Amino acid sequence: MSNYSLDERYMQQAIGLAKQGCYSTKPNPNVGCVIVKDEQVIGQGFHPRAGQPHAEVFALRQAAEQAQGATAYVTLEPCAHYGRTPPCAEALVKAQVKRVVIACLDPNPLVAGKGIEILKAAGIEVESGICDLEAAALNKGFLKAMATQMPYVRLKVAASLDGRTAMASGESKWITGSAARQDVQHWRAISSAVITGIGTVLADDCQLNVRELANVDLSTVVQPKRVVLDRQGRLPLTAKILQQPETLMVMGPFRQELADLGVVQIEVQPLDQLLKQLRRDHQIYDVLVEAGATLASAFIQQHLVDEYIHYIAPTLLGHSARAMFQVDLQSLNQQYRLHIQEIAQVGDDIRLNLTPLQE
Amino acid sequence: MSNYSLDERYMQQAIGLAKQGCYSTKPNPNVGCVIVKDEQVIGQGFHPRAGQPHAEVFALRQAAEQAQGATAYVTLEPCAHYGRTPPCAEALVKAQVKRVVIACLDPNPLVAGKGIEILKAAGIEVESGICDLEAAALNKGFLKAMATQMPYVRLKVAASLDGRTAMASGESKWITGSAARQDVQHWRAISSAVITGIGTVLADDCQLNVRELANVDLSTVVQPKRVVLDRQGRLPLTAKILQQPETLMVMGPFRQELADLGVVQIEVQPLDQLLKQLRRDHQIYDVLVEAGATLASAFIQQHLVDEYIHYIAPTLLGHSARAMFQVDLQSLNQQYRLHIQEIAQVGDDIRLNLTPLQE
Repeated sequence: MSNYSLDERYMQQAIGLAKQGCYSTKPNPNVGCVIVKDEQVIGQGFHPRAGQPHAEVFALRQAAEQAQGATAYVTLEPCAHYGRTPPCAEALVKAQVKRVVIACLDPNPLVAGKGIEILKAAGIEVESGICDLEAAALNKGFLKAMATQMPYVRLKVAASLDGRTAMASGESKWITGSAARQDVQHWRAISSAVITGIGTVLADDCQLNVRELANVDLSTVVQPKRVVLDRQGRLPLTAKILQQPETLMVMGPFRQELADLGVVQIEVQPLDQLLKQLRRDHQIYDVLVEAGATLASAFIQQHLVDEYIHYIAPTLLGHSARAMFQVDLQSLNQQYRLHIQEIAQVGDDIRLNLTPLQE
Repeated sequence: MSNYSLDERYMQQAIGLAKQGCYSTKPNPNVGCVIVKDEQVIGQGFHPRAGQPHAEVFALRQAAEQAQGATAYVTLEPCAHYGRTPPCAEALVKAQVKRVVIACLDPNPLVAGKGIEILKAAGIEVESGICDLEAAALNKGFLKAMATQMPYVRLKVAASLDGRTAMASGESKWITGSAARQDVQHWRAISSAVITGIGTVLADDCQLNVRELANVDLSTVVQPKRVVLDRQGRLPLTAKILQQPETLMVMGPFRQELADLGVVQIEVQPLDQLLKQLRRDHQIYDVLVEAGATLASAFIQQHLVDEYIHYIAPTLLGHSARAMFQVDLQSLNQQYRLHIQEIAQVGDDIRLNLTPLQE
């Protein structure tokens, strides 16, 4: 029991390290590693960025020859394949650690357990599943994308207490306060792509990039791709969102002028196909949908939303204001029931994180 | 500083005692008293019920002759008038306490300070304002009703994330869960009256009384009056709400059959006049409005709501479901902006307590 608590404590430390990469490792997962000997931390590290060493490598470097006989805590099963770096499982073997504690297994069903096999074959004691839920929460997109063909989709909603996102005229600046708008930047920054509709781009001339994160050097943030759904090819060349064409993707009819700017263009297709393509062809594992009611409602109705990032502004806008959920339901058995995962007060507003209830 | 903290600690204890009367003292306020000598609590009490002794009397009885030279902590200024009991200020003088610490002054501007005067004239050291906000929160209705001509009005709302209270058909059983519905019983039980509209009575055949409170003996609860707004006199004599005619009030055209049952009948009048009459003629200081969207919206629009008890069920009901706020607003500068006072998770739902932002 006391040994288990100690394991948990070191794993929490490794999770804390992993989080430091949350804005910068995409498409790679966030991983942290702590190496412990005689109840002393002798090495720690996290994966900072794709192309840079994995967490275990940093931690082993720091521990150096002391790693022999030590215990390594890793938030994700050490890799077993030669990629840009040699497999971490082999590095742990070479360093002669005595024991490896793992939070989550490799999510790819084809390789899950391979890293553990290498460790065990070398006589290393392996334990897994310690703090696995907390560790899994670090990499919702990566884990889902590896296990399925789809990215993890978060839908951002900002509505009044009476469920309205704008006045009938479209007026909506601002329903939520500045703290909530700043909070959105975090969810953008952990996403590989932000999806929006052409209506939102035309109405707000928005950029949907990450411009402000408290205590974070913006140059370390891997900016999300912005994906504009523009079935009729209406995006004006003067739109602000075109100022960074290298992170822009447009789903619509092919336009030479967008190609000339270097914008990635995607064929018009249903939302689920688009999500699959983003995952398959562009390694986009975490998607944030920031859209008007029509597009947001389509994602909801097609059961494509994994998590709602729902801001509630404490205000009443009346029954002629725009409804957040534009779907016509007749009876309560058609409702979209959710489960509250988290409640946070953000300035004068509230953020709820919700997930669909399994039917 | 340390003395001040000690004062606060004893006053918190007195507040905790006062709370024990929260369902039973109406129309009297909740008051608690702690008597302390040499850092020992030698007496404590709370006002349990109208007609029974005040908090100070219980505490002084317990302290007996030890009260001499002690400090008394009282959540509300001791009374100075002869009512059903002799004035508590005089009882404290008689007991020869050395010091009296008071949270809130008497809210009635005509008598505020009178209790303190009696104490000071007897050479007792008096301090006030200690934990006054927490103590005031015990008696929102009493304090407002004494200071103004109006009761304190709470509006209960139970809506979905998209601000809907029922499907278009009226189907609404159940949007919030059983924990939220049980939580409502607390707000009913601290109220002197529950106001509803005839539409709700006809649709739900509701009783709106207090039927279940965790760990509370229901026989000690002073049941709130139920006030039905029935401008056309449509209340059927078979309605369940008529089963306890002694706590029923109906605003509508005079009906002999209701009079025969002992139901109090009130002339049809505007909502603000009704509230004034309830306060003036019936000592109703805390009102809970549990009504459909039309009546609830009228209270909101007429700025009669002091506090929103807003339950949010994590579900989406769609744009054809019934809107919680049936008012037509054109621009954001007409919005009804609120301030979040409290956030509580209640079972699978959320309760927000909100107050109108001062304009």
